[in-house]
Amino acid sequence: MKNIAYYNGKISTIEDMSIPLNDRSHYFGDGVYDATIASQHRIYLLEDHINRFFNSMSLVNIQPDFSKAWLAELLAELALKVDSSEQFVYFQVSRGTAIRNHAYDLNIKPNLTVYITPSTSPKTILTQSLKVQTEPDIRFELCHIKTLNLLPNVMSTQRAQQKGLDETIYHRQGRVTECAHSNVHIIQKGRLKTAPTDHWILPGIARKHLLMAAKRLGIPCDETAFNLDELFNAEEVIITSSSHFCSQVTEIDGKGVGGRNEQLLQALQAATYQEFQALI
Amino acid sequence: MKNIAYYNGKISTIEDMSIPLNDRSHYFGDGVYDATIASQHRIYLLEDHINRFFNSMSLVNIQPDFSKAWLAELLAELALKVDSSEQFVYFQVSRGTAIRNHAYDLNIKPNLTVYITPSTSPKTILTQSLKVQTEPDIRFELCHIKTLNLLPNVMSTQRAQQKGLDETIYHRQGRVTECAHSNVHIIQKGRLKTAPTDHWILPGIARKHLLMAAKRLGIPCDETAFNLDELFNAEEVIITSSSHFCSQVTEIDGKGVGGRNEQLLQALQAATYQEFQALI
Repeated sequence: MKNIAYYNGKISTIEDMSIPLNDRSHYFGDGVYDATIASQHRIYLLEDHINRFFNSMSLVNIQPDFSKAWLAELLAELALKVDSSEQFVYFQVSRGTAIRNHAYDLNIKPNLTVYITPSTSPKTILTQSLKVQTEPDIRFELCHIKTLNLLPNVMSTQRAQQKGLDETIYHRQGRVTECAHSNVHIIQKGRLKTAPTDHWILPGIARKHLLMAAKRLGIPCDETAFNLDELFNAEEVIITSSSHFCSQVTEIDGKGVGGRNEQLLQALQAATYQEFQALI
Repeated sequence: MKNIAYYNGKISTIEDMSIPLNDRSHYFGDGVYDATIASQHRIYLLEDHINRFFNSMSLVNIQPDFSKAWLAELLAELALKVDSSEQFVYFQVSRGTAIRNHAYDLNIKPNLTVYITPSTSPKTILTQSLKVQTEPDIRFELCHIKTLNLLPNVMSTQRAQQKGLDETIYHRQGRVTECAHSNVHIIQKGRLKTAPTDHWILPGIARKHLLMAAKRLGIPCDETAFNLDELFNAEEVIITSSSHFCSQVTEIDGKGVGGRNEQLLQALQAATYQEFQALI
């Protein structure tokens, strides 16, 4: 198939799939999701993503009626059905289907959506350098949960795209938090500095694997929040996500940034890509 | 019909209506809505609600492919098809249907959802007194737009319901903002005090008509933010919404509140109900 969608047991192409009007995602964004890539039809870091997905569900009190193992098997089967061997793998659960009401029945049955589309090889993406903008972080303060309440992220991404830019870095109360759909880190005095995983950022899986790579390479890591001044004056600025791994940022708000410790940056990029090659 | 749903020209009962998986409401909550009541099959304050709906669309850059007059006519026709003469009337637009991507095509065609269900007469609701809780306001800072990003509101409402309470009053940086799905006001020294309509609260239509009623009655109005101390010590605490008009709050976080200017409260309740009777 050119792509595939799954919804509560039904399978079709994404374009042909329909869902009930009363799916609570439709009225409230009442659900959570996760996403990763597949290469050679094998899903990358699936256990990490499924663990985070179950954690997101727990944090919004959605009770799955399936196990982690069952979901892993379903995703693996669906990935085999898509023609392209390089894939983007998305899975989402909403609280369920009911006549619209903010409050919900504790016994409501959740709705599981999966879709898989062809995607670009991570090797191509890794060598891209990014130009980005900054914006105040006005999102709700549950950023550690990967929810479907993404309107601020949509609007920031659209504004960035209209300026020909790749991402938006958010800042809140003087602190750089994360991006509209990725995490941001800096190299400062030879150290990798990245914000702690509190309620203001998503615990990125690419972030976790970047820290693991840095530790393997003997690069000191500092999980402390940094500010906009530190961002603009960093030796390197790095954006990570599950589909973009570890990208160099070369311009923020029209000003050149980073480019002053490319040896260390490239070592991190090589290490994250080697891990990908080893695990796929 | 017992109830009715409309989606981009299709009509059915709400339970039978389906929508495309790729409606952007499903992935991002990328849309806005409005809602009001109908009595005797006539929709109350429809012009106000349609004006706010169009304003919400504009604020998130959704371009409707219909006019205010066309929507008003559609809603009026649908209201006639539902058996119950007392109704809840809900309308929503999402940005459109597309393969999931944060950024969107500027020419995307929006999706219009309408549904109408039987509801309780406002006269019954008006005499209810409410018990509520308070919570920190962690919602995103676009509260003046009636968006589909409602997960924090869902979670607050559920927590309130599990305690047997009717609503949640939010506070942010020491200021009382609004409730999970209504506005909150106080009577203080014989004046009606209510937060200004900035980006932290929805410009409630029931709020606007409460202020109009107060002015007709010669009650001084003060559109200034108030804090939790003022809330707990108010002569009366009032919650307004399009389906609940003007309700007295008698308990917050387990403590008795208000009840010290019932003459003024009842005058406001009578005035808002008289306006409803005059306009329906």
